[in-house]
Amino acid sequence: MNSSELTIAIVGATGAVGRVALDLLEERRHPAANIVAMASSRSAGKRLPYAGTELTVIEAKPDAFHGVDVAFISASSEVSKRLAPEAVKRGSLVIDDGSAFRMEDAVPLVVPEVNGADVAWHSGIISIPNCTTTPLVMVLDALRSISPITAVTVATYQAVTGTGAAADLELMTQSHAVLDDRDVVVDQYPHQIAFNVLPQVDDFLSNGYTKEEEKMLNESRKILHDPALRLASTCVRVPVRVSHSEAVTVEFQNPVSPGEARSVLDRAKGVIVVDDPHNSVYPMPLSAAGRDEVHVGRIREDIAHDNGLSLWLSCDNLRKGAALNALQILDEVLKRDCLKPAGLTARI
Amino acid sequence: MNSSELTIAIVGATGAVGRVALDLLEERRHPAANIVAMASSRSAGKRLPYAGTELTVIEAKPDAFHGVDVAFISASSEVSKRLAPEAVKRGSLVIDDGSAFRMEDAVPLVVPEVNGADVAWHSGIISIPNCTTTPLVMVLDALRSISPITAVTVATYQAVTGTGAAADLELMTQSHAVLDDRDVVVDQYPHQIAFNVLPQVDDFLSNGYTKEEEKMLNESRKILHDPALRLASTCVRVPVRVSHSEAVTVEFQNPVSPGEARSVLDRAKGVIVVDDPHNSVYPMPLSAAGRDEVHVGRIREDIAHDNGLSLWLSCDNLRKGAALNALQILDEVLKRDCLKPAGLTARI
Repeated sequence: MNSSELTIAIVGATGAVGRVALDLLEERRHPAANIVAMASSRSAGKRLPYAGTELTVIEAKPDAFHGVDVAFISASSEVSKRLAPEAVKRGSLVIDDGSAFRMEDAVPLVVPEVNGADVAWHSGIISIPNCTTTPLVMVLDALRSISPITAVTVATYQAVTGTGAAADLELMTQSHAVLDDRDVVVDQYPHQIAFNVLPQVDDFLSNGYTKEEEKMLNESRKILHDPALRLASTCVRVPVRVSHSEAVTVEFQNPVSPGEARSVLDRAKGVIVVDDPHNSVYPMPLSAAGRDEVHVGRIREDIAHDNGLSLWLSCDNLRKGAALNALQILDEVLKRDCLKPAGLTARI
Repeated sequence: MNSSELTIAIVGATGAVGRVALDLLEERRHPAANIVAMASSRSAGKRLPYAGTELTVIEAKPDAFHGVDVAFISASSEVSKRLAPEAVKRGSLVIDDGSAFRMEDAVPLVVPEVNGADVAWHSGIISIPNCTTTPLVMVLDALRSISPITAVTVATYQAVTGTGAAADLELMTQSHAVLDDRDVVVDQYPHQIAFNVLPQVDDFLSNGYTKEEEKMLNESRKILHDPALRLASTCVRVPVRVSHSEAVTVEFQNPVSPGEARSVLDRAKGVIVVDDPHNSVYPMPLSAAGRDEVHVGRIREDIAHDNGLSLWLSCDNLRKGAALNALQILDEVLKRDCLKPAGLTARI
C-alpha cells in the first residue's frame, strides 16, 4: 500500500506541529481528499489552505475516526489519552506526538533511523519521542558504533514552538513590548521569555530535574535499547522561534577521535555534519529551521574527560522533532506491512 | 587611603562596561572631580551624566594618565596593550578588563572573593577575568571546600553586552527588523543574533575550541591556583541583553550532596542561592541583571556521573563580570595597601 492511498487524520491541525504536518503532506503530494484535519471544537469549521485548495477542520471526537487509516495526534496529553484508544478501536493506527504513551510497554517509541524495526510490535499506537530526544539519539546511535557510551551530558537551547503556536505568538508579542518599552504580559511560561532564558521546560520532579529532562533520559534508553545509559541534561528555553539546539558531551569506553566521529556522523541517515568553524560554519537554529536533517558540528575532543567528545547540534523541532518523524514512522510501517497490529486478526 | 580620594580614569567610558563603572562610582558617591572619563578620539568631547553633573570625555592617550591613581581599562585588547604600559609608566595602577595581560606571569588575575591576596604582587597591572569565568570560579571555589574537583563541564548562554554596546544595539535593531518583516543587517557577529543562538564566542583555535572557551579554562586554573583543573566548555551567544548564564556539571573526588553544596554556596561571599524550582524560582538573566551577586540554582545530583553535581547560574556580565569586580579589586588593593607595585620604590 502506498501512503497516498491512506486516509490520514491530523489531530491538532491548527497547531504549530499540525501545520507542519500538512506542509509535509503537501510536499509529498498527498491528496487533499485523503486528509482529515481535526482540532478542538473551538477550531471546527476553520479552513486551512492545502495544495491550492482548502481543508475544513472538523471536531476531534471518537466518531470522527471512522474510515481513518492513520491518525497523527499532536495535541495535549489529555487529548491523546482520550482520543487515541477511540481511534484504535475504530481501526486507525495512531502515531502520537505527546508524552502520554511513550513509556508504555505496549507502545513502540520510534525514530526510524535508529529503531525502525520497533514499529512491528505496535498494538495500535506508536509514539514519537520528545523533540529534544530525537536528534540526540540519532547522534548517539551513530557514535556508539565506534565505542560504547559511558555517559552523556546535555544542555539544551529550546525554541518556543516546542511549547506550541501560542508560545511563539507570546515571544513575538513580548519582544514587541520590550522594544516599544511597554509592559510585558506573561502567560505561556512562568516568566518573560523575550530577551531572557528560562532553565525550566515542563514541571519539576522531586529530584530537582524537570519532566523534560527525565523524558530525555527515559526515552533515549528506550529508543537505544540501552536501559543502563547514563545521561543528564539541563533543559533551557531560549527566545528562538524554531529549532532546538544542544551542547552535548559524550564519554566513551575507548578513545574516539573527532575525525572518526565526523566520519560516522557523515554516513548516518538523517544527519548532516555542518562543521567548518573557522569559516563560522556550524549548526544554528535559524539555518536548521525548515530542514529535515539533524545538523551536527563543533565536533572536538572533550578536554575535561578521557575518551570524551563534545559537539553541538540543531534540529527543526517541528519537522524531524515531530511531524516529519511521524510521517517517516508511517513509511516504516508500510514498508514492513504492519499497519494493523499483529494481534488484531486473531482478536477479530 | 580611601578610594574616594583617588583619581580614577575610566578608559572606554562610553562603552557598555564603562557606563556601568560610572554607575557604580556614582552609587559609591565617588566625587566627579576625581573621575577622568576617557574614550577614543571619536568620543572625545562627549558629555556623560554623572551624579547630577556631567563628565566631559577626553581622548585616551598616554599623557592623559598624568595624575591618575587608578585606570580601569575596558576597551579592545589593542587599546589595553598600547595604553596600559603608558599609564603604569605615569604611576597609575591599571585594572584591565581585557584579555591582553591576563595570562602574563607578572599580572595577577583576580576575583577578590577567591584570590584577593594575589593583588599584592602586581607590577602595575591587575587583570580581571572574562565575564564567564568570574561567576564560575566563585562557585567552584566554594564547592571545592567540600571535596576536590575532578572535572567541570559548562555550556554558556551569553548576553550580547559581553561584546559591547554596539552588539546590544544590533540585537535590538535586528529584533525590530524581524518583527517588521524587514531584512536583517549583520555586523557585530558572523550571523544574525536576534531570535537565533550562535555557538561561537570569539575566534576558533586549531583544537576546535574558541578563544573564549580556552580563556575559561586557563583563567579558572590561574585564579583557583589549580593548573591541573580539567574543564571543558561550549560558549554560546544568546539573544539576551545583560547577564550570562551557565549550565555547569561538577565532578568531585568524593560524593557531594545537593544539600551540602547549597549550604556552602549560601555562605560564599558574592553568591546567592536562588533555588526554589517548584515555585519556578531559579536564576535567570533578567533577574540577575543589575544585581551584584552570582545567582546559583537548580542544584541537583548529576545522574550521569558518580560524585557529580549539576547547577545553573546567572550573573550580570557588566557588574560582577566586569566593572564591579574591578572596583572590588581596587578595594582589595587599598585594604592591603599595595596601590604602588612592591618593586617600584626600588626601581625609582
